[in-house]
Amino acid sequence: MPRVFSGIQPTGDPHIGNYFGAMRNYVRLGEEYGKNSIYCVVDLHAITNPAAYDPKTLAQRTFEMAVANFAAGLDPEKVVFFVQSQVPEHQELSWVFTALTPVGELERMTQYKDKAEQLESIPAGLLMYPVLMAADILLYKADTVPVGEDQTQHIELTRALARKFNHAYGETFPEPKAVYARDALRIPGVDGQGKMSKSKGESSTIGILEPLDSIWQKLRVAPTDPARVRRSDPGDPDKCLIGDYHKLFSDLPTIETVYEGCRTAGIGCVDCKKMLMQGITRELTPLQERAEGLRANPDWVRDALATGARQAREIARPVMEEVREKAGFLKL
Amino acid sequence: MPRVFSGIQPTGDPHIGNYFGAMRNYVRLGEEYGKNSIYCVVDLHAITNPAAYDPKTLAQRTFEMAVANFAAGLDPEKVVFFVQSQVPEHQELSWVFTALTPVGELERMTQYKDKAEQLESIPAGLLMYPVLMAADILLYKADTVPVGEDQTQHIELTRALARKFNHAYGETFPEPKAVYARDALRIPGVDGQGKMSKSKGESSTIGILEPLDSIWQKLRVAPTDPARVRRSDPGDPDKCLIGDYHKLFSDLPTIETVYEGCRTAGIGCVDCKKMLMQGITRELTPLQERAEGLRANPDWVRDALATGARQAREIARPVMEEVREKAGFLKL
Ligand code: SF4
Ligand code: SF4
Repeated sequence: MPRVFSGIQPTGDPHIGNYFGAMRNYVRLGEEYGKNSIYCVVDLHAITNPAAYDPKTLAQRTFEMAVANFAAGLDPEKVVFFVQSQVPEHQELSWVFTALTPVGELERMTQYKDKAEQLESIPAGLLMYPVLMAADILLYKADTVPVGEDQTQHIELTRALARKFNHAYGETFPEPKAVYARDALRIPGVDGQGKMSKSKGESSTIGILEPLDSIWQKLRVAPTDPARVRRSDPGDPDKCLIGDYHKLFSDLPTIETVYEGCRTAGIGCVDCKKMLMQGITRELTPLQERAEGLRANPDWVRDALATGARQAREIARPVMEEVREKAGFLKL
Repeated sequence: MPRVFSGIQPTGDPHIGNYFGAMRNYVRLGEEYGKNSIYCVVDLHAITNPAAYDPKTLAQRTFEMAVANFAAGLDPEKVVFFVQSQVPEHQELSWVFTALTPVGELERMTQYKDKAEQLESIPAGLLMYPVLMAADILLYKADTVPVGEDQTQHIELTRALARKFNHAYGETFPEPKAVYARDALRIPGVDGQGKMSKSKGESSTIGILEPLDSIWQKLRVAPTDPARVRRSDPGDPDKCLIGDYHKLFSDLPTIETVYEGCRTAGIGCVDCKKMLMQGITRELTPLQERAEGLRANPDWVRDALATGARQAREIARPVMEEVREKAGFLKL
């Protein structure tokens, strides 16, 4: 049976791109692979990005990301779900890999170059990020890593490190494969500017835990197909992000109504957005209610995360023991 | 009371430079500061230097370094003595510091540049070495660090990281001071080529656990004051490494005899070396006998190291808890 690992950035309020791209995928993989699905809120990664990291909010964001995933249907009894900083073996393995990774390879990482370019002083955490990520994955001997395509190079490095370790110390790690979540890549921002992303700020995203009226305010002003200048101009839903969102949130009859109505100018854009809002409300209301219930019971969330960390360490510890012995650390 | 931290490279058989420069110092500081003297065999650092690291021998070298220190008089009941890889908080804190350290500062480290220059592919461990070293020291909130002068820059970085952390997260760490062990810097190699160092290979060093006849073979062929071409030529013990060694190993009457005899050509160099050998034998025999006893009782050594690691973690854990909370890691 494959073993799945995925790291989840503690962005606090995940957007619908995360939801359709990753979170629903985690739930599905959890149904399929049970405790071989390992999901980790990567707060240790979060501290490497000075632009996004705030020590005052990190704990809250980490907690909220757990809430969001549980609310989205992730069952902590079925999968292993935990917070990275609760499992020190991540940093332990990362250090062993640090000794095996050429500086030059890290400097060549596209994500590093892109981020470093924008900074006057580059923190070493940005450079070492992919090494910790490799440790995240290989600590569980995971072979399957659902990621975005922007992580291809990092997964390649992970595979290279697995090979290098195996070569130097004897067969230990699998070479994990990236699996790309198709949906995540196609979800446009609510401002119509390409992929939904936190880096463009809250205004371009729809948070799954965002109040519905706030979502409606964003939809209301969202751009539609520019061909529809007047109400009587026909449009093309495939050239409109509201059309894209319908494909995610609306049922088939609604989607058909929208396509037909848009192309024939039979419906106006405001009506169309209202129909979308119905779908969003149907999808997000139960999720937001569950989130409210979880926030009202933070001990349950903490307990679930503590159990998850225990289960993660049960897998991580023997792997780290094996690494320690092979690397020559004295065993007492 | 000051708190002393020192990292000890697991070089296996320490030489007399280590012994007079560091180990005897540890014993002395241990008498003075007790459990505020913290000594750590830094096996996690050892893996960063591809030229010196061999996974097959590291555990043995780590064990031998512990034996040597205990044999030299370090009392594990008095000080805290442990192996770095037994205390995962070192890597945990190191990661937090990694996020705070500019890549540029690490690239400017002289030791890094010197080592990197000699390598085709530079492992990231070499670059990150000073960050782990800073974590080693600050994890114990140590304020006093006995080191060689080649570590000045690394201690500066440690101080900078303490300041930076304190500034970003609130007062947490002291700014540790380096204290230089005077003796270590003056001990010439037995080949007469400057400071005794492992990098020149075994032949230039006198191991404190080295068999006495092997030491004698090295002394026998060691160069002396070049002015003494013939037995009848007077010499100057201050220009002769045998004279230097006498100052370390011989008692005052012997030193006086040697100085007088050398300057007046009253003694030959072979006689002089034999007198030195008596001092070496007197100093090293009990030490080597204790080492033999410890090797015959490896469980005692392991127990002592396990106790040391427990004591180290008792100090390290609350510090790391403080760091985790300040950095914003979710507390369960
Ligand atoms: S009717 Fe709907 S899909 Fe067509 S342009 Fe307007 S908002 Fe977009
Ligand atoms: S007598 Fe001793 S100190 Fe003088 S040159 Fe010979 S070995 Fe050196």
